[in-house]
Amino acid sequence: MKQALAATALLCIAQLSSAAATEPAVPQSVIYVIGDGMGMEYITAYRHFADDPTTDELEDTLFDRYFVGTSATHPHEHGLVTDSAAGATALSAGIKTYNGAIAVDVDKQPVETLLERAKKLGYSTGMVSTSQINHATPASFAAHVDSRQKYDDIADQYLDNRIDGKPWVDVLIGGGEQYFKRDNRDLVAGFTALGYHYADDFASLDSIEKAPALALLAPKGLPFAIDQPPANRLAVMTAKALALLPKNKPFFLLVEASEIDWCGHANDIACAMAEMRDAEETLKVVGNYVAGHRDTVMVMTADHSTGGLSMGANGEYEWRASVVRGVTASANELARQLKDAGSDWQQTWLELTGIALTSEQHNTIARQVKASRRASTETEKNAAKTELRATLLSAIDRASVTGWTTSGHTGGDVPVFAAGVNAEQFAGHQDNTAIAQKLFTRLHPAQ
Amino acid sequence: MKQALAATALLCIAQLSSAAATEPAVPQSVIYVIGDGMGMEYITAYRHFADDPTTDELEDTLFDRYFVGTSATHPHEHGLVTDSAAGATALSAGIKTYNGAIAVDVDKQPVETLLERAKKLGYSTGMVSTSQINHATPASFAAHVDSRQKYDDIADQYLDNRIDGKPWVDVLIGGGEQYFKRDNRDLVAGFTALGYHYADDFASLDSIEKAPALALLAPKGLPFAIDQPPANRLAVMTAKALALLPKNKPFFLLVEASEIDWCGHANDIACAMAEMRDAEETLKVVGNYVAGHRDTVMVMTADHSTGGLSMGANGEYEWRASVVRGVTASANELARQLKDAGSDWQQTWLELTGIALTSEQHNTIARQVKASRRASTETEKNAAKTELRATLLSAIDRASVTGWTTSGHTGGDVPVFAAGVNAEQFAGHQDNTAIAQKLFTRLHPAQ
Repeated sequence: MKQALAATALLCIAQLSSAAATEPAVPQSVIYVIGDGMGMEYITAYRHFADDPTTDELEDTLFDRYFVGTSATHPHEHGLVTDSAAGATALSAGIKTYNGAIAVDVDKQPVETLLERAKKLGYSTGMVSTSQINHATPASFAAHVDSRQKYDDIADQYLDNRIDGKPWVDVLIGGGEQYFKRDNRDLVAGFTALGYHYADDFASLDSIEKAPALALLAPKGLPFAIDQPPANRLAVMTAKALALLPKNKPFFLLVEASEIDWCGHANDIACAMAEMRDAEETLKVVGNYVAGHRDTVMVMTADHSTGGLSMGANGEYEWRASVVRGVTASANELARQLKDAGSDWQQTWLELTGIALTSEQHNTIARQVKASRRASTETEKNAAKTELRATLLSAIDRASVTGWTTSGHTGGDVPVFAAGVNAEQFAGHQDNTAIAQKLFTRLHPAQ
Repeated sequence: MKQALAATALLCIAQLSSAAATEPAVPQSVIYVIGDGMGMEYITAYRHFADDPTTDELEDTLFDRYFVGTSATHPHEHGLVTDSAAGATALSAGIKTYNGAIAVDVDKQPVETLLERAKKLGYSTGMVSTSQINHATPASFAAHVDSRQKYDDIADQYLDNRIDGKPWVDVLIGGGEQYFKRDNRDLVAGFTALGYHYADDFASLDSIEKAPALALLAPKGLPFAIDQPPANRLAVMTAKALALLPKNKPFFLLVEASEIDWCGHANDIACAMAEMRDAEETLKVVGNYVAGHRDTVMVMTADHSTGGLSMGANGEYEWRASVVRGVTASANELARQLKDAGSDWQQTWLELTGIALTSEQHNTIARQVKASRRASTETEKNAAKTELRATLLSAIDRASVTGWTTSGHTGGDVPVFAAGVNAEQFAGHQDNTAIAQKLFTRLHPAQ
């Protein structure tokens, strides 16, 4: 009987291979989501953060549902920890390069990106991010620059890089207006002259009905999800991009949950978890889209992890998600509001965090709030705010038992999520460059 | 053509399902490997540690080859970080319980373990560990005790727990002789009276030719791999267990790489990487065995991560595996040897680590070596050694850019590796209890 089973299986494999071999290559639509800085520990922490406390169970998240594998993240010199530019170039072009490189190789030569190839093949294309849309990650899909710091050059390329006379990206939604409306050049005018619909807030974005479109919803990055509604802004922007991209041809859409990384750099756990919630909302939008459309694949991953986050720290065997859920503002915003509250800072702190302070923490914050208010020069003000913020974060970390090792990135493997056609191609462990290489094989002429 | 392919696929699925439905359940042999404390960051760090520095490439490890998914690790109260007892009970019995519980539930009632079920079904059984064999992880497969601290009770149960008059475990190889040869009871004599062959060193283990067998190769845990040969002791013990287990019936073998966790608690990166190397050697032995034998499955995972390890720390974007490779003794051993070297400590340090010290580090160590030698009482000696060890570890961490957040465990998901029959059953994200539940379905009467 076992032999019969094996024989049937072999026959089936033969039949399927032969059928597949004669199948013409079908161009696939690709939705590529990058959670900047979203290391493994963020996925577990978010599961506890998102838990329904009214049930005994710890519910799975959408990250858990779509998890298929991991990716290595090191840049060209593998003793180094990657930055977002080299990380995004690996994910966009399938090559290892130096930190700071925007879709150029170690010799600073341009390397074709997935989005660029897709556009050449006749796809429609989109990019969405919560950072300025010309920040390192999206930039590495639609520009070739030797340094991520050249924000103006990157923005210029978004308008100037052309295929068949048209910019590479049909739908651009994110922050960064200050880089597009400059004294020396008005790129927004350039885009609208080419027929792009323009929006500078969520209401006007909502009213755009057709691609091409450019939406720049903040001067630089969008406000943190924890600080300003809509908290699900990335999900909203992603749904809009999916709605706008023409459906008479395949599309390539890049989505970046940019600010997980920014909260990680700040070692601000509540800020990071709010960004993770928006990332999960986005995954819901994307997952639902892919479930309803054939010949579409969704891959989500991270470029690196940030902060050296750990659940549990200093010998304590606990991570208190409920404490994190109680914090309703970023440390930046907390510091601002405590300063404004002056001698009433304690009530503001309790309202915004619910965290009881030790007397030592209390005394330090009281002193630092006073110093913030006394500060007169910009330098003094910044120094005072930095000190206050560090104390507030330390109080949150201690109450929630959250650990960090760095204000920078870390080198561990990151998660890979996938859904849609042949999602299993991304299963197991792989290099970040392999993700791009696999996606390249799915791009075919759009007719 | 696409429809033809879909039709072929459907037909195949139908044929395979119907063939499978009539197939009798085949008992499978199970090799279950637990890397205690082996969190995700350990896997990436080990890839860099194991890298061949003479090539440009960063070679994949066996962990990478067998990686299929991740596991959640929280104990019964999911705000807590698990210990190894609750973690092992989840992995051995498929239930959540309290920290400290050895195969008992939250009401302290025994819960059947995989090894116990396998023995009842007529399997042969084995356990191998680098810790004392009655330590929390193996204990949770072959004893039921309300506290992991009851080492003597656990050892007693290994002899006293019987199925058809025989102890549950046919082959026991690890450390822990002091718990088996006690003033109040000689368990070794008890085992040999039942026909167990006994070994107390690697040479005599080598000469054992048949199960049943008991080998207790150290008073408690075995020395760290980095400190004393054979460095691949777990691989050697595992190969021996596989050779000894009778092959006229299926078997269940538990293997624990126990001391990854111990090095993690010590925040000793070189110690941890040497344990990881032994774990990879073990995976090679197990992987080769599974490749050569049908109806066998190998699953490897961790119970939790330890130390809050990160590659990169304090804002530095680098992890120097070469520094870690240059460290040839555990911090414990380094402290002992530096103390013994006295005023020559600096040469000993360089010989054993190759790490150049800052003048501040130099002065601190010089002072602490002196204090170590001056210390007269046991308390003073221990305190001096602890201080010196901390300084040495801090020098290694700084030189290698290694970060830690805790001397305890952390809550992040851990990796899952699998090979053999239906290994894909362990793919994706799962709870630790689900791993045991899946393995239970593979146990059938051995005839």
